[in-house]
Amino acid sequence: MAKVSDRIVRLAVFAVFIVGAIVFLSQSSSPAGKYTRQSTTGASSSSSSSSSAQSVLDKDLAPSSLQSNSKLPFDIPDYLDPNYKRENATFISLARNEDLWELVDAIRSVEDRFNSKYKYDWVFLNDQPFNEEFKTVMTSLISGNVKYGVIPKKHWSLPPWIDEKKAAQTRERMKNIIYGDSVSYRHMCRFESGFFFQHELMQDYKYYWRVEPSTKLHCDVNFDVFKFMREENKDYAFTISIHEFEITIETLWETTKEFIQQNPQYLDKNNFMDFISNDGGETYNLCHFWTNFEVANMDLWRSEAYQKYFEYLDQAGGFFYERWGDAPVHSIAAALFIPKERVHYFEEIGYYHGPYNNCPIDDEIRIKNKCMCKPKDDFTWQDYSCTRRYYDVLGLQKPLGWEQHTG
Amino acid sequence: MAKVSDRIVRLAVFAVFIVGAIVFLSQSSSPAGKYTRQSTTGASSSSSSSSSAQSVLDKDLAPSSLQSNSKLPFDIPDYLDPNYKRENATFISLARNEDLWELVDAIRSVEDRFNSKYKYDWVFLNDQPFNEEFKTVMTSLISGNVKYGVIPKKHWSLPPWIDEKKAAQTRERMKNIIYGDSVSYRHMCRFESGFFFQHELMQDYKYYWRVEPSTKLHCDVNFDVFKFMREENKDYAFTISIHEFEITIETLWETTKEFIQQNPQYLDKNNFMDFISNDGGETYNLCHFWTNFEVANMDLWRSEAYQKYFEYLDQAGGFFYERWGDAPVHSIAAALFIPKERVHYFEEIGYYHGPYNNCPIDDEIRIKNKCMCKPKDDFTWQDYSCTRRYYDVLGLQKPLGWEQHTG
Repeated sequence: MAKVSDRIVRLAVFAVFIVGAIVFLSQSSSPAGKYTRQSTTGASSSSSSSSSAQSVLDKDLAPSSLQSNSKLPFDIPDYLDPNYKRENATFISLARNEDLWELVDAIRSVEDRFNSKYKYDWVFLNDQPFNEEFKTVMTSLISGNVKYGVIPKKHWSLPPWIDEKKAAQTRERMKNIIYGDSVSYRHMCRFESGFFFQHELMQDYKYYWRVEPSTKLHCDVNFDVFKFMREENKDYAFTISIHEFEITIETLWETTKEFIQQNPQYLDKNNFMDFISNDGGETYNLCHFWTNFEVANMDLWRSEAYQKYFEYLDQAGGFFYERWGDAPVHSIAAALFIPKERVHYFEEIGYYHGPYNNCPIDDEIRIKNKCMCKPKDDFTWQDYSCTRRYYDVLGLQKPLGWEQHTG
Repeated sequence: MAKVSDRIVRLAVFAVFIVGAIVFLSQSSSPAGKYTRQSTTGASSSSSSSSSAQSVLDKDLAPSSLQSNSKLPFDIPDYLDPNYKRENATFISLARNEDLWELVDAIRSVEDRFNSKYKYDWVFLNDQPFNEEFKTVMTSLISGNVKYGVIPKKHWSLPPWIDEKKAAQTRERMKNIIYGDSVSYRHMCRFESGFFFQHELMQDYKYYWRVEPSTKLHCDVNFDVFKFMREENKDYAFTISIHEFEITIETLWETTKEFIQQNPQYLDKNNFMDFISNDGGETYNLCHFWTNFEVANMDLWRSEAYQKYFEYLDQAGGFFYERWGDAPVHSIAAALFIPKERVHYFEEIGYYHGPYNNCPIDDEIRIKNKCMCKPKDDFTWQDYSCTRRYYDVLGLQKPLGWEQHTG
């Protein structure tokens, strides 16, 4: 007993030390470094590594306020700071109970590479109630609060104005293309396009990061992605962009043009039209952001412009009479309704969703973030990707040697 | 400039705080808790999780000295303690340059689940020099010192007393069984049996943890495995045990019996013979520890008993005239030359090497350690495993419900 109370006293003293120290320290952190502070830990954790990589590891590109931490007996990463202020953000995954084991590795990957440090919440949505096994396993793996929600029937069913026969004929006609014959896939696309951000569990949040089964993060994410979004005024961020199968969205662009003609006020004057169209808006070039990875500000989807746009698309029926995906829908909206500078490409977030990889071709980035991917597998600069166009339209400088990763 | 020096002063003060605090704290840690202290962090990191799993997560089976840390503004895990004393231990992986990408995920898994916390060294051995790509990638992924060594020719070639023709005939004869026709596989088995612990890079160490490509850890390892080995007097530890293909070791047991008859003094009086033989040593029951995962004390292999034993086997030629594996060789030696209590099974270290899994069937263990495996995939209690026998011979109590995982 004496020993125990003795320990508690020591711990109490320790607590005072830490709090005082953290407060002390927090006053001296420069805003610029905030969401890259953790990168110093990444470097120092390998400080005993062989010189070959060390030279690179020591280079920390970010002006981090914890740089000088290497002078400390050990690094105190920002996420251990009890005063660390998380953003108003959550992860979100749409899943069925049977997806549990397919999803576990993807969740663990995000936890290992990012969220075990920052401990953001995670929202799971399902058209059926989640079972105990799903909830117990996921809750054990996730560092933040975990919330499980059921999707309202009206957000996962054919709306009254849709002709069931015609929808069935579409599925028959499209049965030879991927998910062409699937009703639930179409409900998913419609839900991800127009409803997920309306779910009651999502009302508490502004930013989200979408995670799907069978995906993987290749590299450590050594900064607070959500803080970056807010501080850099980004509303939509992606890792992989790609061309859509035209057959799934035959009338999407015509419908979009009608909407814009009727509502020109929603078109942002500094929009990203040139990313999605090669002829100033006449036709759609099929470029879209791959939404299986998506970090965005829900204000974009909750805006009057997008609400009206989705309603217009939903009335047109293309989610069921064709197979409109949430990826082209989100991408077109992000390209038309917000300034193009608010769309961000996360070059340094190594990401995999079969069969494509976002793998930083810059050796320094890969080594600093402990990437597990082969640059030769990177999809970014290949012809079927649209990210080269993203760089061109925004007039950004491409990473050194990108030409060797085309074709 | 003024701001910078100001920050350095603050950091210096912070450093003093921390060091003082750690010294203070370290005096109050109980040995019993040492290698399980980290488990409290595991629990507290999920402290915001839903009640369902929380009830389990909060239960910490180990009497940990940092239990009371939950009273702190945040946990200080033992591995962040600058005074934390690592064991004299290293990871070791035998690899070829072309194994790089197959090995990366296995290495990252060990780093994520264990070594990013404890930062033990890693030794890579190869019969050819490692190339720059291999070294740069591995060094960037591993938290501890990384060392790359070349295997001396005499440890990776036919010894002079081996008849090359006869060895070639063996490979022809065995070409239909796995690795039956491979020379390099035989060099590997011989090297892992008799030479790896003699390599100059291994001379600095006492304990090792062997890691192979295409393996995975399913669960967080929330304690210092090497400290456990030393403090609990364990010399050999495994996660999966299994029966050997008899055709690969037809004369191994006869040869072993000859050796024991000639050197009875090496047989430990409290040996584990009953694990490897069902008839008191007359015949070998083919049970062995799967050495693709192996944590052991090299004093065992460096002992006179094992040195003489290996020499005897090597002279007999079975590594080349049959296809003796390092697994049965290590297992037989561990069973005969040390007290059986020094052989340990890591129930809580979830592990995968195709096609078998060690997945804790105890829900509490899986949840507390964030396991990513399905208990129904556990191999431990199936008939082809030998771990049930391990429990029986040592008179250990099997986990609740093991009967549902047999067959």
